[in-house]
Amino acid sequence: MAPMNILDLKKTILDNNDQDADVLRSETKARGLSYLNLMSSPGSGKTSCILALKRAVGDRLRIGVMEADIDSDVDARTMEDNGIPSIQLHTGGMCHLDADMSRQALRSFPTKDLDLVILENVGNLVCPAEFDTGADINVVILSVPEGDDKPLKYPLVFTRCDAVLINKLDALPVFDFDLEKCEKWIRMRNPSIRIFPVSAKTGEGFDPFGKWVIEKVRNRNESN
Amino acid sequence: MAPMNILDLKKTILDNNDQDADVLRSETKARGLSYLNLMSSPGSGKTSCILALKRAVGDRLRIGVMEADIDSDVDARTMEDNGIPSIQLHTGGMCHLDADMSRQALRSFPTKDLDLVILENVGNLVCPAEFDTGADINVVILSVPEGDDKPLKYPLVFTRCDAVLINKLDALPVFDFDLEKCEKWIRMRNPSIRIFPVSAKTGEGFDPFGKWVIEKVRNRNESN
Repeated sequence: MAPMNILDLKKTILDNNDQDADVLRSETKARGLSYLNLMSSPGSGKTSCILALKRAVGDRLRIGVMEADIDSDVDARTMEDNGIPSIQLHTGGMCHLDADMSRQALRSFPTKDLDLVILENVGNLVCPAEFDTGADINVVILSVPEGDDKPLKYPLVFTRCDAVLINKLDALPVFDFDLEKCEKWIRMRNPSIRIFPVSAKTGEGFDPFGKWVIEKVRNRNESN
Repeated sequence: MAPMNILDLKKTILDNNDQDADVLRSETKARGLSYLNLMSSPGSGKTSCILALKRAVGDRLRIGVMEADIDSDVDARTMEDNGIPSIQLHTGGMCHLDADMSRQALRSFPTKDLDLVILENVGNLVCPAEFDTGADINVVILSVPEGDDKPLKYPLVFTRCDAVLINKLDALPVFDFDLEKCEKWIRMRNPSIRIFPVSAKTGEGFDPFGKWVIEKVRNRNESN
């Protein structure tokens, strides 16, 4: 196996992360680069949703992926195997990324020829939602086996995101999951959030999601 | 609906949590009470595994449950509906419990007639593993839909636990999950951990797990 590109992130010493996140957004915008922060519980399908998105958008969007993990390089290898430029970020036990850690990562990643960098955040619905990474697009995945009540239990991440993917839709028949109720509870947390029911396994729902991502990236560049 | 017993936990000001956790273990031991800390990702089935354990042990163990949640009282209501004494703990946004927070909770809970208090920790594989709650039994749930690679990605929680429940075993046919490989990776993190493949939905596997919990509780009391 080829040696993997691994970056050990340093702990941030800045104390105004929100301000720094705004600065990072200006920096990426000036370079015509979009930055998407993808959050979910462990095992909701972040990696396979990124692969399904890439298949849906094809050459219309040049995508690179930063894989944040406490340990291991499993996901970055999967990206490389699928021809997607990627870097493995090791958080050294930290449960989230902030804006400065994002900046460290983006600097170590050749983004010149990319339209969009996706951060696969640490699998965790709680802490990542509390820290603005400086992303201009925030997406959360909720998978069917986790249950439809997650927006009740983990409100912040739904409040903070622009879109939610309801993944593993193909598993609906074997789980007691009420899609309508779930969508209602998500909108209760965030009335303007976009909801995409998808299956990374079958590819279902990734065309509308891909279109939405492409529009977000284009609109940002056009407002430059 | 009856008013729920809700406790808002205060942030701990002690700085030696490990020492405090040992003190809490002595305190509960002196009272003949066992304390089980149950951890997992959101949606792995903590609540339904507690209900299945209760059904498996019947009257052989008097169980109470403390439901830690950032928001909502969904789970404590489920416990009450099933006749299990319970209290809802609100962590005020915090992603984990430590020993002093456990002590606050145990004090607000009538434990006199109980053999075992189960803490349903905040759904999160990262942070709860970093803080010793003072529990004498630590259990993690990994559910089949999350994928067999979780021990590679979230090592600490597997290192710290006495047992792992591999839950949603009934969903094995619809997911690409290698049970053998998963068990190998779990033992790589922790050779002495006990592994119980279970299904909270069908009850499969809860007899051996229940027996193991009963033995843990009895052994502790006998060493008093």
